[in-house]
Amino acid sequence: MDGVYALILAGGRGTRFWPLSRRNNPKQCIELGGERPLLAQTVSRLQKLVPIERILIGTGVEMEDAVRRILPDLPKENVLVEPWGRNTSPCIGWGAVEVGRRDSSAVLVVCPSDHVVADEDGLIEAIKSGVLAARSTNHIVTLGIEPTRPETGFGYLELGPVAGTWGNHEVSSVARFVEKPNPETAQRYLDGGTHLWNAGMFVFTVGSIRDAYRSHLPRSAEALERIARDGSAIASEWGNLDATSIDYGIMERERHILTIRLNVGWSDVGTWTAAGETMPKIPGGRGVADEVFQRDSKDCVVHAPGKAVALLGLDGIVVVDTPDAILVMHADRSQQVGDLVRTIEEHGLKDLT
Amino acid sequence: MDGVYALILAGGRGTRFWPLSRRNNPKQCIELGGERPLLAQTVSRLQKLVPIERILIGTGVEMEDAVRRILPDLPKENVLVEPWGRNTSPCIGWGAVEVGRRDSSAVLVVCPSDHVVADEDGLIEAIKSGVLAARSTNHIVTLGIEPTRPETGFGYLELGPVAGTWGNHEVSSVARFVEKPNPETAQRYLDGGTHLWNAGMFVFTVGSIRDAYRSHLPRSAEALERIARDGSAIASEWGNLDATSIDYGIMERERHILTIRLNVGWSDVGTWTAAGETMPKIPGGRGVADEVFQRDSKDCVVHAPGKAVALLGLDGIVVVDTPDAILVMHADRSQQVGDLVRTIEEHGLKDLT
Repeated sequence: MDGVYALILAGGRGTRFWPLSRRNNPKQCIELGGERPLLAQTVSRLQKLVPIERILIGTGVEMEDAVRRILPDLPKENVLVEPWGRNTSPCIGWGAVEVGRRDSSAVLVVCPSDHVVADEDGLIEAIKSGVLAARSTNHIVTLGIEPTRPETGFGYLELGPVAGTWGNHEVSSVARFVEKPNPETAQRYLDGGTHLWNAGMFVFTVGSIRDAYRSHLPRSAEALERIARDGSAIASEWGNLDATSIDYGIMERERHILTIRLNVGWSDVGTWTAAGETMPKIPGGRGVADEVFQRDSKDCVVHAPGKAVALLGLDGIVVVDTPDAILVMHADRSQQVGDLVRTIEEHGLKDLT
Repeated sequence: MDGVYALILAGGRGTRFWPLSRRNNPKQCIELGGERPLLAQTVSRLQKLVPIERILIGTGVEMEDAVRRILPDLPKENVLVEPWGRNTSPCIGWGAVEVGRRDSSAVLVVCPSDHVVADEDGLIEAIKSGVLAARSTNHIVTLGIEPTRPETGFGYLELGPVAGTWGNHEVSSVARFVEKPNPETAQRYLDGGTHLWNAGMFVFTVGSIRDAYRSHLPRSAEALERIARDGSAIASEWGNLDATSIDYGIMERERHILTIRLNVGWSDVGTWTAAGETMPKIPGGRGVADEVFQRDSKDCVVHAPGKAVALLGLDGIVVVDTPDAILVMHADRSQQVGDLVRTIEEHGLKDLT
């Protein structure tokens, strides 16, 4: 699609996939269930929309090597290496500047690097409609996911009035962005049908996002202007960018935001347990291993490529083997892995994370 | 103790300790809980009774290398390598012949290689009393363990009248050997106080055991006579020895057997779960690993030397890591590991066992 660029945010560590995910090999770069890394899948998906020359990756210093290894065809200058992690708004601002330098009337599609989408064509069609809407209205367009469960781990966006139709999609206004709800509220959102999951996918013109930074993050906007004039200023200006998320810094403050409702089999693959749901079937559950033997075991998730695994009398146990660390946990604890990684770091065992 | 020899039976594979135990590195040769191998512990214990020159080891072809590696000080000729496994009576018969060749009036102490004893001095004192009783009566003396639980996995021996006192021990006749009981019978044995566990420890003169083979296993006795005349006949005569256990072939048939009651903190270390009880404490349970992190976990058993292990939300889970295989099981399944090994072999994956 002409004049369209994509920015994939690949700066997260994905600590919930420890011990497979590490600082220098984050969630988006690991092979889950024997599949290609999520980052590679994300790039392939976006290549249905734009050529790889117009795909940019924002990532961190420690994971730069892994990103380049996974994406050998990506132009070297398309990797934006953040000097250090400062949440999402600095990287998106930098990406918009970089794209604006190449094409001042470009539309930028921003998306995470570590999600999966079953209906890729459906997603691409929606992005195309989003591009049309963004160009036509000069508003930021978000892609919202129809909830399929009362999820408390995501932010939501509340649907406002219909703004019009672009492409094949009806586009609505966003009434407001809301924070992660409690279980009762999440259930109400699910039942009500007027809330969508905020999946971190945005479409905007480089002009409209520049205006939004000026309005809501003026200090960032000034730093970004200096970076626009001199790309080499990134190192010195990075600390002047507000270390805040795009949601909190821009989206929740911007009055006119549009959204397209998506039902495309999206998953954020948030935990080992969630990832396990789509892994290959093995005796006793799902996962990857050289051989699996089981007795009276079910709903287990196994990551042990190159090894034989035996599961006896287990129900819903996750087993992740790596050369220097093993994680064994009940499936309902998969949200706690990130905490665990912090504990390990507090013990001074940074080599393990 | 003069004129006394020991024969340690180290021919078992100990499949219940898979994946750490293998054909060429059986249970008695592995390091459980960071301790020396059980075979090395058994030899050290018996060295309180006899010098190492008078300790013989019966083992199998595949595990010979492991035995010699663990016991570098053992004279080469003291390892009796069974041409192939034929249960315990051939090896004990061979050991008695070998000892008789060195000292025709010797007393032989037979014991397993893979048990632990907390009170080693208590055991040695009892063996000494057994040697006196065996010499004095020319009967076979067994060492029986006072039951501490209604165990259904062992054979028992029923106490008969007291036969006399030797050393510091009252020695009783054995009324009969009984097979593994059902749970109700095991409870009755425990409550009754007149049954001991048959732990496979025997003391006898070489003359008395030769007579017993002549009476109960005459075909074996003839083959043993030929081996006694020509040690090199072992390969050709091995198939002529009855492939039966010493319990079934001799003990259950012999009329006059004596026993000494032992309360020495004995354990057969039968499973990962049993072995775990004496391993070092770690967060979340017991075992060996480089680092262990846990949340809401208890009563786990871990064998993962050289690795970090994280346990989240686990209760009574056993984790055993080796370079090519991992076992994860509920502690109450530890008896099933042997079955699992047979399944793996049936799948043609002999490399893993």
